[in-house]
Amino acid sequence: MAEEVVLHGLWASPYSRRVEVALKLKGVQYKYIEEDLSNKSPSLLKYNPVHKMIPILVHNGKPIVDSDVILEYIEETWQEYPLLPEDHYERARARFWRKFIDNQVLLAALLKAFWGEENGREKALEEASGLLNFLEEELKEKKFFGGERIGMVDIVANVIGFWIGTFEEGTGIELLTVDKFPKLCNWVDEYLSSSVIKENLPPKDKLIPFVRFRFGGTSASK
Amino acid sequence: MAEEVVLHGLWASPYSRRVEVALKLKGVQYKYIEEDLSNKSPSLLKYNPVHKMIPILVHNGKPIVDSDVILEYIEETWQEYPLLPEDHYERARARFWRKFIDNQVLLAALLKAFWGEENGREKALEEASGLLNFLEEELKEKKFFGGERIGMVDIVANVIGFWIGTFEEGTGIELLTVDKFPKLCNWVDEYLSSSVIKENLPPKDKLIPFVRFRFGGTSASK
Repeated sequence: MAEEVVLHGLWASPYSRRVEVALKLKGVQYKYIEEDLSNKSPSLLKYNPVHKMIPILVHNGKPIVDSDVILEYIEETWQEYPLLPEDHYERARARFWRKFIDNQVLLAALLKAFWGEENGREKALEEASGLLNFLEEELKEKKFFGGERIGMVDIVANVIGFWIGTFEEGTGIELLTVDKFPKLCNWVDEYLSSSVIKENLPPKDKLIPFVRFRFGGTSASK
Repeated sequence: MAEEVVLHGLWASPYSRRVEVALKLKGVQYKYIEEDLSNKSPSLLKYNPVHKMIPILVHNGKPIVDSDVILEYIEETWQEYPLLPEDHYERARARFWRKFIDNQVLLAALLKAFWGEENGREKALEEASGLLNFLEEELKEKKFFGGERIGMVDIVANVIGFWIGTFEEGTGIELLTVDKFPKLCNWVDEYLSSSVIKENLPPKDKLIPFVRFRFGGTSASK
């Protein structure tokens, strides 16, 4: 049976983009279906009745939802270009950082730092910096979190490699500066130079007004 | 080299208890160290500098933190008694339900339903019921989420199998009733009859005052 791989996604979603990057790194051919979250399709509601969200990967008719569940599925199903290290302990470390990047604390701190109330900004920026510092330390002398090449943690760190930059441009607020985060900034450069990443990022000129509208409310005028 | 497995945990934590159950199901010998979260030990701070939380599994001197990262590590490291199904799609489903049980929405709904303000209780109970209903449906005719025996989802579902009951007894509020959730209630019976589960639950007479103190504030007098 020919494989049928379909991804239901959203152009502006970092979660959806992660799945695309993983599929491309592994050389998996897939069909992409853009979803409109303001008018969810019957397929989306059928495939993900619990969360009613993207991304959804449909493999030979079977839906897999939740981006990190999808990433584990992709890693197990297609052997090309392993996204996780072989060593069990290193795999656990990668999963830990994947979860760290995705945890609500970091996301909440970032949203608050860029899009929250003015009077809580300084504290939120400090909190976000403190959390990003753990990633700065984790990079050590590595080019990518995955070592010499992009791995699972790098894929998930697109929110740091690209979305933070978009937030910075959209608000004029600086967070990821070279003096504070030399290793992370170097990583961002390497990351954005990688062809598979570059080709799977939303256009910034379209994303900036999108995030401004999404997070900035009507008061965000910058 | 003889294996050295040490678990830093907390007697009342469902996350810590999960790791114990997984180790016991796989027949892994381990040393248990009870942590006092009001006075965190130097080991805890050294092994988990990011979150400073339990559980922490230290395997031959290397720390693994975050209960679901630990569960994946245990599953990969010790082959006895597989906790996840073999089939990739079924593994993805198990990981999805594990994440569903652990997500903030369900936990928030449960805490609000049992320990929140009186005037928001009915809505919170309704929300928690709606979420539990997905699990009721997932059980179908299965004895356990893992099929004929306890698997990864069952281990994680200890918050439903035991902690909800403790909350019910601690507050006098009913949520998991046989008329609304016949399959889940049957699962709870099977679950609590299983020897490895039974032997790894905190004593209820000690846990009820603990959760009352932890979540109920000073106003919880029931």
